[in-house]
Amino acid sequence: MSDTMKAGVLYGARDIRIEPYKLPELCPGMVLLRNCRVGICGSDLHYYQHGYCATFVPDRPFVLGHELAAEVVALAEDVDTVCIGARVTVNPSRNCGFCDYCRSGKANLCRKTVMLGSASTTPPTDGAFAEFVVVRADQCHVLPEEVDDALGAMIEPFAVALHAVKRAGVVSGHRVLVTGAGTIGLLVAIAARAFGAIPIALSDIVVTRRVKSLELGVDAVLDPLSAGLSERIRELTGDGFDFIFEASGSPIALRGAFDMVRPGGTIVQIGTLGTEDVPIPANLLMNREINLIGSMRYGDVFEEAIRLVASGRVNLRPLISGVFAIDESVKAFEFAGDRSKSVKVQIQI
Amino acid sequence: MSDTMKAGVLYGARDIRIEPYKLPELCPGMVLLRNCRVGICGSDLHYYQHGYCATFVPDRPFVLGHELAAEVVALAEDVDTVCIGARVTVNPSRNCGFCDYCRSGKANLCRKTVMLGSASTTPPTDGAFAEFVVVRADQCHVLPEEVDDALGAMIEPFAVALHAVKRAGVVSGHRVLVTGAGTIGLLVAIAARAFGAIPIALSDIVVTRRVKSLELGVDAVLDPLSAGLSERIRELTGDGFDFIFEASGSPIALRGAFDMVRPGGTIVQIGTLGTEDVPIPANLLMNREINLIGSMRYGDVFEEAIRLVASGRVNLRPLISGVFAIDESVKAFEFAGDRSKSVKVQIQI
Amino acid sequence: MSDTMKAGVLYGARDIRIEPYKLPELCPGMVLLRNCRVGICGSDLHYYQHGYCATFVPDRPFVLGHELAAEVVALAEDVDTVCIGARVTVNPSRNCGFCDYCRSGKANLCRKTVMLGSASTTPPTDGAFAEFVVVRADQCHVLPEEVDDALGAMIEPFAVALHAVKRAGVVSGHRVLVTGAGTIGLLVAIAARAFGAIPIALSDIVVTRRVKSLELGVDAVLDPLSAGLSERIRELTGDGFDFIFEASGSPIALRGAFDMVRPGGTIVQIGTLGTEDVPIPANLLMNREINLIGSMRYGDVFEEAIRLVASGRVNLRPLISGVFAIDESVKAFEFAGDRSKSVKVQIQI
Amino acid sequence: MSDTMKAGVLYGARDIRIEPYKLPELCPGMVLLRNCRVGICGSDLHYYQHGYCATFVPDRPFVLGHELAAEVVALAEDVDTVCIGARVTVNPSRNCGFCDYCRSGKANLCRKTVMLGSASTTPPTDGAFAEFVVVRADQCHVLPEEVDDALGAMIEPFAVALHAVKRAGVVSGHRVLVTGAGTIGLLVAIAARAFGAIPIALSDIVVTRRVKSLELGVDAVLDPLSAGLSERIRELTGDGFDFIFEASGSPIALRGAFDMVRPGGTIVQIGTLGTEDVPIPANLLMNREINLIGSMRYGDVFEEAIRLVASGRVNLRPLISGVFAIDESVKAFEFAGDRSKSVKVQIQI
Repeated sequence: MSDTMKAGVLYGARDIRIEPYKLPELCPGMVLLRNCRVGICGSDLHYYQHGYCATFVPDRPFVLGHELAAEVVALAEDVDTVCIGARVTVNPSRNCGFCDYCRSGKANLCRKTVMLGSASTTPPTDGAFAEFVVVRADQCHVLPEEVDDALGAMIEPFAVALHAVKRAGVVSGHRVLVTGAGTIGLLVAIAARAFGAIPIALSDIVVTRRVKSLELGVDAVLDPLSAGLSERIRELTGDGFDFIFEASGSPIALRGAFDMVRPGGTIVQIGTLGTEDVPIPANLLMNREINLIGSMRYGDVFEEAIRLVASGRVNLRPLISGVFAIDESVKAFEFAGDRSKSVKVQIQI
Repeated sequence: MSDTMKAGVLYGARDIRIEPYKLPELCPGMVLLRNCRVGICGSDLHYYQHGYCATFVPDRPFVLGHELAAEVVALAEDVDTVCIGARVTVNPSRNCGFCDYCRSGKANLCRKTVMLGSASTTPPTDGAFAEFVVVRADQCHVLPEEVDDALGAMIEPFAVALHAVKRAGVVSGHRVLVTGAGTIGLLVAIAARAFGAIPIALSDIVVTRRVKSLELGVDAVLDPLSAGLSERIRELTGDGFDFIFEASGSPIALRGAFDMVRPGGTIVQIGTLGTEDVPIPANLLMNREINLIGSMRYGDVFEEAIRLVASGRVNLRPLISGVFAIDESVKAFEFAGDRSKSVKVQIQI
Repeated sequence: MSDTMKAGVLYGARDIRIEPYKLPELCPGMVLLRNCRVGICGSDLHYYQHGYCATFVPDRPFVLGHELAAEVVALAEDVDTVCIGARVTVNPSRNCGFCDYCRSGKANLCRKTVMLGSASTTPPTDGAFAEFVVVRADQCHVLPEEVDDALGAMIEPFAVALHAVKRAGVVSGHRVLVTGAGTIGLLVAIAARAFGAIPIALSDIVVTRRVKSLELGVDAVLDPLSAGLSERIRELTGDGFDFIFEASGSPIALRGAFDMVRPGGTIVQIGTLGTEDVPIPANLLMNREINLIGSMRYGDVFEEAIRLVASGRVNLRPLISGVFAIDESVKAFEFAGDRSKSVKVQIQI
Repeated sequence: MSDTMKAGVLYGARDIRIEPYKLPELCPGMVLLRNCRVGICGSDLHYYQHGYCATFVPDRPFVLGHELAAEVVALAEDVDTVCIGARVTVNPSRNCGFCDYCRSGKANLCRKTVMLGSASTTPPTDGAFAEFVVVRADQCHVLPEEVDDALGAMIEPFAVALHAVKRAGVVSGHRVLVTGAGTIGLLVAIAARAFGAIPIALSDIVVTRRVKSLELGVDAVLDPLSAGLSERIRELTGDGFDFIFEASGSPIALRGAFDMVRPGGTIVQIGTLGTEDVPIPANLLMNREINLIGSMRYGDVFEEAIRLVASGRVNLRPLISGVFAIDESVKAFEFAGDRSKSVKVQIQI
């Protein structure tokens, strides 16, 4: 095996270069993967457009990409839980396994987490927009035949949605609204649908996204700017929604959720907001015993996500808007950036 | 029995008159109580000081008072669940029993609730600062010998605290902070103490209240304005408090709670805030999976509250700052209004 | 209105007589319903076959029937929550609304419950195999257009299944087995399917029922007597099922569940067992932290059941095996008693 | 450092020899501890009395002991989470950290767990009745000053009790019975007391244990063989106990719990039963929605246990019946075997 590989390396804002890159090293506990299909996440896009993401500023060029389907091609000596040749997807967060958070089933809050394809650590950790990537053995989840590479690379974003729905509690049989029909919003609606929520409404200010939502089978779409909104919600739900998933990242949407949620209901914040404080009606929250809860990435839901996709209970394929070769990475990122045209864009490696 | 009784009637701001008042009527399902001891709640005080409370404006003079110990003196014909002569305390919220909220164990959210001594309905419902009061039979909870009238009239505010602690989940063994050392804040600390929270800290900007808190046995008091606050919290809790009960009603305290709560932790809003929106760090809430939840009055906790008080597991007596005769009602309300001197003020009837 | 009506009156074992019967009286709080469609429950059948059911022995002839779709035809003066002309289904358990159980959302455990069409009280309470029946207003749940009478009379048994699934916790995304493919077993599988359980397996010793189960869309059927059972379960689930719903009422099935449930998993007993004690491997239950929980009738799930049926998320129609006129009641009960041919049998009134 | 140490080595039934033993090896991730105080567990005693425990038969002589307070004396090179010189107690179950159970916060169900001082693996794993022992770094929990060695060696059994109480749900404010006043039963009562259960009753057939229970502050003791038992329970609880912890390991006690538990209540099996099936009233379990759940060892409760002991909220010292030198190990085990005289016996090393 050569000691270099082809990779899409991020040098700065709108500067991804396809070039030879050092092959990642196989330390104890790790496995080497040959990447097959990798999706572009909203955070990847943010790095591409700005050269950084939130407070994460890379101190050297690095490789993005953490939504992947890949093949296991080599194992460190001490690994016996995966096999060479296995087709896998990856939980990109490598957590410590032994802190208070990990021990109590909240590994997504582990402070020692190392994220694939991210500058959340310094130096950054290289990701999967490359021929090969290295991850710890326990990050791998085997894909059954029914889940091809395209769907395999959708498991990670679906895990985000699944975790949010599980954080909410029992949505089954309850009235659900998702605000924001981007990738995560649509995936939350799909997950809530699979879990028996009824009705499921999606709201978005963009008409093409509302149309897309209807195609995916939600029960109702709402225009948050329309005049008859309250009336429509009363019709759909009586006293309001039991659960609202705020997936738009808009402070206005979060504020608006308080007028649409049922007393005793729950609002889950899943869309990334800016760092500025957001005004909320805290007195109403108290009087009506509303719950406002955050949802961050995912807990241990990868196997469950794979099972749901493999069974056909959920169909994620309609969300894939385009697939590009690695050499066309720039084109892929530019297309992904056009939110009116694309939902999920993937790169074939 | 005469058809009038002595009552403290609220005519407007700072205008309570002790005068003859019509005896309440005994409709089906109801019981007539002779009041013994009645506490002054923060909402009573607000009515007294302003003539109204929040959005509740009485359309006629009425009688306040909903924290009571009383004796059953007459029953409607169809009542067989309480006995004449029983000493009782009262759940002042008479809910419908059959709506979706009542059926699912969330009677505190019932939209048909009639509150004793409140102008939340029009006309207002007369309360217990009077010789007699009428309530529905199921609102009565029998007091055992161990709970005298003074403690009996403390059960209702303690129920508010108990409900908040139960809304929070399992506080046992966890790190708890209460912000605001007024009556409800102190009662929450007492309830959390009884339920095994460790450590329990109380924060208040007023030094006399911090001293009072220490006397009641909390593990630590915090001055929210002190310089070394973060350092102190790190010492006490490591990564922050598991639960914070915001009982001060201050937007600054609510905002500050987000800097003191552990990732995955819960903030319970229990203090009444104004109607203006309060800015909160919603992005932090998401990233750290913080839960912000409201707590409103009480669910079905009266029997439990009585059991805890009767057993001596909790001692509410130190919170009673003064007892006045009904003829001294004005003096009682004025004393209750001086928050530096009084916690709970009661009227003997 | 005449003061008698036509009714199917149970006089004893296999002795139902279609005859004139006193019209039920409209007391305060109650509504008079004209019955349209009424299903035969397993307990109705037991009364029919034996003259009694479990420990409930009627002290006079009475009318069975508690799974109904009906029309509201008269209201007591004090009722304002339902309208004449409304098409409704009925929660047959009239609970007190104010005991500890009712207040905490566990009305199904209320000791003062009066059951429609049952000898659980003395004298027995007449049910719906008659032209008219009287129930308390809050027992009525309005049926939308999408739920016709046949489906309306299925809401009550579906509520039993829905309650069991909700008692279990979050079945969504988890591995579920139902033992016993009778009406309730099939309904539990349907509810678990709607709530996103994956995979769902049904086991039954009768081959025709296993075939029926497959038609209804379960992922796998198991023959509890087959040789390769353990191997098959390992294939389907790895370490065992997360949830097992025991709906057969067979002690052997309950015992067997312990060998098929995952460590940390839950077994829900929903099938009626005899009064004799059942041996279970309590040491295994401890070592593997298995939960064995009972599920009794239903909590507040009628509105949710109606919503799920109305939306088409669940299709209960395939469970209806036959519909008979009230004059053919005996024939209907005999057909219902042949479990190899019938699932749910209904009477048109 | 010499390559041998003094140890109490189990050769067979009632055959413990104090002799030189190979010093344990310090592999990566591990720390070497100098043991100070070690408690004798019921399982240690079983090994001592029979040469094996349950299905665990050692294939070579080994060292028992898993309840310990110790000092860190050496670290593997890669360990940076504990410091040499730290005084610690140990979670004796070394779990894998990455299986489905570990990831979901149920590490106590991890199938790859290696237990200190146990023959659950082959060969057995040497424990702490020796001068030194080796454990993985994350198994160590630092003891604060307030927790001396005697209390430090009580943390592990207290963790068993704490886990059981947490498995039960919210015991705070609820009625609790513990059946069996052995070490674990007493510790459960202490934990439930600290968490605000009210009342707490203990039942045991042995009168001296009932006396001991009263000394430790339970609210009531019950003789399960007494005539007026039902009447007494009605007095104490009304409808029965909300939670019953079965800590005696007696099938009769488990069966009896069903007659004393409230509808909707929970029975937690924590005492080790034999491998034979135990008859339970499964029909009652269903009708009354009783929960029967197992509790196995502990989850992530060590830090919480230490916090509770350090704060003085719980006092475990009265449970220590005797302390022996390692050279007196045989005497210590014999004394521990006399259940009428001893609760917890410890060895000073």
